Amino acid sequence: MKNEIFETVSICGLGLIGSSLGMCIKKRKIAKYVIGIVRRKEIIKIAREKGVIDYGTDNLSEGIRNADLFIVCTPVGNIVEIIKNSLPYLKKGCLITDVGSTKKEVVLNVEKIIRDDISFIGGHPIAGSELSSIEFAEENLFENNYYILTPSKKYKKNLFIKLKKFVKSLGSKVVVLTPSEHDFYLSFTSHLPHLVAFCLTNTLTENENWGKYIGNSFKDTTRVAKSPPIIWQDIFFSNKCEILKALKKFRNNLDKFELYLKKNDEKKIYKFLESAKIKKENLCK
Amino acid sequence: MKNEIFETVSICGLGLIGSSLGMCIKKRKIAKYVIGIVRRKEIIKIAREKGVIDYGTDNLSEGIRNADLFIVCTPVGNIVEIIKNSLPYLKKGCLITDVGSTKKEVVLNVEKIIRDDISFIGGHPIAGSELSSIEFAEENLFENNYYILTPSKKYKKNLFIKLKKFVKSLGSKVVVLTPSEHDFYLSFTSHLPHLVAFCLTNTLTENENWGKYIGNSFKDTTRVAKSPPIIWQDIFFSNKCEILKALKKFRNNLDKFELYLKKNDEKKIYKFLESAKIKKENLCK
Repeated sequence: MKNEIFETVSICGLGLIGSSLGMCIKKRKIAKYVIGIVRRKEIIKIAREKGVIDYGTDNLSEGIRNADLFIVCTPVGNIVEIIKNSLPYLKKGCLITDVGSTKKEVVLNVEKIIRDDISFIGGHPIAGSELSSIEFAEENLFENNYYILTPSKKYKKNLFIKLKKFVKSLGSKVVVLTPSEHDFYLSFTSHLPHLVAFCLTNTLTENENWGKYIGNSFKDTTRVAKSPPIIWQDIFFSNKCEILKALKKFRNNLDKFELYLKKNDEKKIYKFLESAKIKKENLCK
Repeated sequence: MKNEIFETVSICGLGLIGSSLGMCIKKRKIAKYVIGIVRRKEIIKIAREKGVIDYGTDNLSEGIRNADLFIVCTPVGNIVEIIKNSLPYLKKGCLITDVGSTKKEVVLNVEKIIRDDISFIGGHPIAGSELSSIEFAEENLFENNYYILTPSKKYKKNLFIKLKKFVKSLGSKVVVLTPSEHDFYLSFTSHLPHLVAFCLTNTLTENENWGKYIGNSFKDTTRVAKSPPIIWQDIFFSNKCEILKALKKFRNNLDKFELYLKKNDEKKIYKFLESAKIKKENLCK
């Protein structure tokens, strides 16, 4: 058919991103077959009923042997191992990508082990939410969002072109970065906000009835504190250096604010708040 | 009419809260007349067209002389002065309330100056957003939200009962706190999240094109950084002591997180994230 970019796409991990990818690929006929590889067998039935996959298995080698595109959608800490385990079974010319929220560690380690006749291009769709399971799968999750690709050494040019076409067919806008650039930018725009949301939530003590005093500011500022610990633990360790640097810069801003407040410096507080407002308005139009 | 709780309500300041109050009072016939007192005369026409007030003026003494309930909806830093200026003109038996986001400073200072024949009960509706003008006025802004009242010394009991009835007629649930309790709770659930949002936004440097890397986590975590600096400057200074204490506790959590990350303590990071997730799920159901 016209739209098909790959014949068979295998997806390992059917959380929010993996299952939304499957649903989008199937509904938009971007591939002929979508195969899902899952850890828990009971997901297969749900995934088929929701139109996420054509066929599901809990056996990695079985799920990937026909793959033209293999997308790894597991927590960051498992990506390299899954790719390593898949290498003996993938067919020649296969393209591997992932959707991990950090890129440097993954790309470096995959490049060390990958076969010469297989390509790898890291990926990260800027989509998702604190709701992590297949239950929330959405065909349009990637629509109008950016999708970062981090090609480095081990890929064929024609497959990079095909992958960009694939990303566009999901409705996303392609951004090409080096893995290091990716990890620098995302440490500020995603990892630090998550860290802050977790810390802000933990700042509330156990023994008070806070519910009555919570308005939309607390709700939104801490929305992502509901995110799965297992996913975020991996991300924080995998991008540790950049996150610690971003945290330091955030602390510098807390220090500034605190100093102005202690010194009753109204002018400087006003300027600080105004600068944030202007920045925010320009960033999130 | 049956629903009317006060004959004349005068509202000073038609920002989001003041104008939404007016709209709600008029639509639900909670008072016979709503008078708006504004700084900029051009707001009067808009307010009348939107059904926020019956009559508007930029003259305080004119706007309040018939008031049975006088609600001060200006930035926190102006509340005491406006009440002070209004005292010579208010009629005997009038009830004054305000909607300021901090209570201790306001209540203490108003009690020092208030007339014996006039009541004052501080108030704070847990409603609102980063969008601050009359443009965003909503009849249902207070529906199903909590509305904190902080009565202390200078009020008549029957007027407190009337004010509670008034708050319920807005659709809100009444919470009664001392001004100090209010300022303690809100420092954690509102003032600290705002402070963090301002600092998080200012952490992004000027010279990068961040827009492509911003997903929903950054957007929501920093939503309130768009709030008006003039309003938040006042709140931060007015509740300085509690905010500095809350900030200290937040920093303790950042310290913990940082230590676990530096020490590669996966177990402790996991527990930290898990505790935030559980807390968040219990808090914001």
